[in-house]
Amino acid sequence: MIEANRAELSFQLFEMADVDGLSLHDRFSAWDRDSVEAALDTAQHIAFERFLPHAAELDANEPEFVDGRVVMNPKVAEALQAYREAGFFGAGFDEEWGGAQMPETVRQAASFLFLMANVGTASYPFLTIGAANLIASFGTDGQKRRYLRPMIEGRFFGTMALSEPQAGSSLSDITTRAEPRGDGTYRLIGRKMWISGGDQEISETIVHMVLARITGAPAGVKGISLFIAPKHRVCDDGTVGERNGVTLAGLNHKMGYRGTTNALLNFGEEGECVAELVGEPHHGLVYMFQMMNEARIGVGLGATAIAAAGYSVSLAYARERPQGRQPDGKDPVAPQIPIIGHADIRRLLLAQKAAIEGALALCLYCARLVDDLAVKPHDESRRDDELLLDLLTPIAKSWPSEFCLEANKHAIQVLGGYGYTRDYPVERLYRDNRLNPIHEGTHGIQGLDLLGRKVVQAGGAGLRMLAARIRADIDAAGDEPELSEFAGSLEIHLQGLLSTTACLAEALTDRPRLALANATLYLDMAGHVVIAWMWLRQARATLVMKAEGRGGEGFSDGKLAACRYFFRYELPKTGPQRDLLDALDDTTLAIRPDWF
Amino acid sequence: MIEANRAELSFQLFEMADVDGLSLHDRFSAWDRDSVEAALDTAQHIAFERFLPHAAELDANEPEFVDGRVVMNPKVAEALQAYREAGFFGAGFDEEWGGAQMPETVRQAASFLFLMANVGTASYPFLTIGAANLIASFGTDGQKRRYLRPMIEGRFFGTMALSEPQAGSSLSDITTRAEPRGDGTYRLIGRKMWISGGDQEISETIVHMVLARITGAPAGVKGISLFIAPKHRVCDDGTVGERNGVTLAGLNHKMGYRGTTNALLNFGEEGECVAELVGEPHHGLVYMFQMMNEARIGVGLGATAIAAAGYSVSLAYARERPQGRQPDGKDPVAPQIPIIGHADIRRLLLAQKAAIEGALALCLYCARLVDDLAVKPHDESRRDDELLLDLLTPIAKSWPSEFCLEANKHAIQVLGGYGYTRDYPVERLYRDNRLNPIHEGTHGIQGLDLLGRKVVQAGGAGLRMLAARIRADIDAAGDEPELSEFAGSLEIHLQGLLSTTACLAEALTDRPRLALANATLYLDMAGHVVIAWMWLRQARATLVMKAEGRGGEGFSDGKLAACRYFFRYELPKTGPQRDLLDALDDTTLAIRPDWF
Repeated sequence: MIEANRAELSFQLFEMADVDGLSLHDRFSAWDRDSVEAALDTAQHIAFERFLPHAAELDANEPEFVDGRVVMNPKVAEALQAYREAGFFGAGFDEEWGGAQMPETVRQAASFLFLMANVGTASYPFLTIGAANLIASFGTDGQKRRYLRPMIEGRFFGTMALSEPQAGSSLSDITTRAEPRGDGTYRLIGRKMWISGGDQEISETIVHMVLARITGAPAGVKGISLFIAPKHRVCDDGTVGERNGVTLAGLNHKMGYRGTTNALLNFGEEGECVAELVGEPHHGLVYMFQMMNEARIGVGLGATAIAAAGYSVSLAYARERPQGRQPDGKDPVAPQIPIIGHADIRRLLLAQKAAIEGALALCLYCARLVDDLAVKPHDESRRDDELLLDLLTPIAKSWPSEFCLEANKHAIQVLGGYGYTRDYPVERLYRDNRLNPIHEGTHGIQGLDLLGRKVVQAGGAGLRMLAARIRADIDAAGDEPELSEFAGSLEIHLQGLLSTTACLAEALTDRPRLALANATLYLDMAGHVVIAWMWLRQARATLVMKAEGRGGEGFSDGKLAACRYFFRYELPKTGPQRDLLDALDDTTLAIRPDWF
Repeated sequence: MIEANRAELSFQLFEMADVDGLSLHDRFSAWDRDSVEAALDTAQHIAFERFLPHAAELDANEPEFVDGRVVMNPKVAEALQAYREAGFFGAGFDEEWGGAQMPETVRQAASFLFLMANVGTASYPFLTIGAANLIASFGTDGQKRRYLRPMIEGRFFGTMALSEPQAGSSLSDITTRAEPRGDGTYRLIGRKMWISGGDQEISETIVHMVLARITGAPAGVKGISLFIAPKHRVCDDGTVGERNGVTLAGLNHKMGYRGTTNALLNFGEEGECVAELVGEPHHGLVYMFQMMNEARIGVGLGATAIAAAGYSVSLAYARERPQGRQPDGKDPVAPQIPIIGHADIRRLLLAQKAAIEGALALCLYCARLVDDLAVKPHDESRRDDELLLDLLTPIAKSWPSEFCLEANKHAIQVLGGYGYTRDYPVERLYRDNRLNPIHEGTHGIQGLDLLGRKVVQAGGAGLRMLAARIRADIDAAGDEPELSEFAGSLEIHLQGLLSTTACLAEALTDRPRLALANATLYLDMAGHVVIAWMWLRQARATLVMKAEGRGGEGFSDGKLAACRYFFRYELPKTGPQRDLLDALDDTTLAIRPDWF
């Protein structure tokens, strides 16, 4: 019942993200349009034939912790075997290590299909790819041979082991210790919490990327190092040896995302846990954050995909379900109309469409920046793209997490009582998506990152870059009469964003608590402006298509309608937010804990 | 872990709803302050000692359909036995039929405690009371003897059987038939869907209040009659005889609210289903809607109670959980602070407090109107109160359903990853509350009811009544310097509500589809104005308390802070909604179904 909208995906890739342009670069020369479409065909086939069919049963029968091991529906391993055979584990990596050098933009589009179909199963490879990225960027050749290559082959899976029971959002407080063993390796001792994919019995072994403190390291974030701690010792040829001292202490039972194990792991409690340092000592958090951009865009994309799944179900339902009549046609013997005929149902559908397609455009815009950086020389010319990507990352993580969750809420509402039952997938999707504003940095943390760091770093250069890009699109749209309302509105809201940011940046220096008190509102407000920009870009792209006789019947009309919805129903919500921010409102600071 | 805030409940009853004043009436003379507090003590004891302890296990192990019967956790029956013995089934009914004539305001406050503790178990008596209300209002003395009295005694439970698989929101399309049996009784034939409490093995029998069409009845809502169709035949002395032809065809498996069975029932499929007509033929929907006011206020109250449960958990967690440091105090060797010290956590708590206490005030305001009507003579003097209650009902149903669900979302966010696990109740509460915008008339239906019917009926008299009451409170608050910001803001927003309503009312006559296209936005906007009014009333009441030396430390400060939060962070959101409404925006009407 969940259906992919491939026309939409092609639009996003070729009309919006100009993936055609990427194949002009040596790195991506294999990825012409036919190859991209073929890869998406394969992804769609595996996603909908192998991932989707067990999504509901995996949710109803989540992995269990039995005698220290994980017992799991075997269909997960079967689906991942198909994923592996199709080469998706290594798609984005260098050919040198067995990868296919697929552009990130395309890889994310393919990921979108897997995430739509079954986020629980899709998480295992995505975590593996994230962990492998760290080794690819900062590991030695020996580490790449031992760990990266088997991960690219899909033989080893990976995890990110950051949080601890007492240190979640506050990573500076982690206490896991790394003691030198004298041979260049380390012994890890500690507990890690919330480790997605932290254990399973699918892959030959699991490569945990662990943050820990080397004995004598300074307190805080500047004393955190990054380690590889595999579940089994791994020989130099990549074969798997005896168990390493990493033990599964328990699984968390979650509201959604149930197919993905989420583990409490003990390091060095039963048997020695031997680990390898990655890169320099005390640079662990820097490495992790360099990779975090892609992980966070992945969260945004996942939130979008889960919403897209719900939207497809609710749209099909709205077209088929007869119920009620128009306000001016109450004749009880006339047949009932499909509920898509009701304005409020269309509003619920438009809200979903506007959120999903706007968010997808943003995630792929960010992925395209990753690709641009991958083909740029390591000199000053990268700086602008890096700053822009840094700035957009908390928005790409958080906006979809917040507003695509809302889309899933609307999908349930379209189905009414049926949507509240487990006979339809919309309630599961809503539960799944509730995780996204929490993991990989909560919504509040993203707000602090955006306002406290990203918009002010490098003297505000990232924000200037963003403004320049938005203005270029406003100018380009200005010629189209159908877009002038939106272009004009976006210009006003961009000016608002810039002036509010200037006001907050000034306060940040001498009154940081007050300046950051409403950072989450700033995040949502800035996100709405950015998504409005994405909608202006989409509207313009469809007009180009239409003028050139491309695009199916109604495609452009639908885009323009959703663009109008976003500009009229969503963007104005930023006005009251900006008023609060400009006023440096201190309501949340002024209330005392004992007044609640 | 879920805790009741009795100080808040007492504030709402005695400082806001003036329950003291009610006991001056003969009907309520037994309900002085001591009796009220004693009843709440009993309710709290049973709710937290008998209802709460099995709430999580009932959710994890929902009732099952086995061999045509319902198998259910026996703790539900035990808890309801305690509820029954304490006399809560009959609390609100006339003494003549075994009731205690408890004021509705007090009864709803007691209900709030049961709903907080365990909505799944609490639903059985609440549905019974709703069904019993119908019989009390429209039944014959014989029907009252046979059904009402045993329901008041808690021996029989009741249901409301309205929906059918093909007719949910559109009740005019129900097809269940009632054929005269020649002896004054009827034979029912049809299927009913979504019947909460539709079957169980707790009560001696179940009294289904069923909407059906008598043979030859006109099409549409004017051909619907109300019937009593018990699960067993009931003798004249109230004893239970043989089975009647009502059979359980299946149970729905829901996202939340899992403790309450939700049934598909067949009438007259296996054995004859004998039913008694209630009141006049073809008046069924009118009767049902007269009772619907109380059911809908009950939904709003339930949504509020579920949010209050989540708030209590998240507040306790925020006070205890150490994580991170202030933006201007990043010393990593300093201890972490409790997260309630972070502005964004306080925002999440304030948003919950503002929604819950505002919604509770509104629900009890409506309940108080019910009480006022209960002691007024049946003449013209009732008209104003009736119109005001009619107008407020869709708001009291929908505002809490929407915004207290949001509060439950915030409660999860405060707990972060822990909140997403089933180890804490906040995820269950969020799932439970997701039902409330759907049942008893969806959010969209409430919008149509408010804008298409309630604000325009009787020439807009209800809205004028509302405006007069709000203005009286604005005037009363105007003298308090601490309230002048809020009083001034409310006056402006009230004017906005009135002018927008006038604009829409005009359009309603000749362009009903356009006028109603954004009825849901109108509902949310009007709801925010009404809740702002409730906050002004609360703020003023706490200043009175403070001046008189009553109220605990910080109580008044907390109320004022939450009032300020609502006026600054919430109320301004209505501005953009009003702009859309004033413009008669047609975005949702203009998009064609094939453009999605």
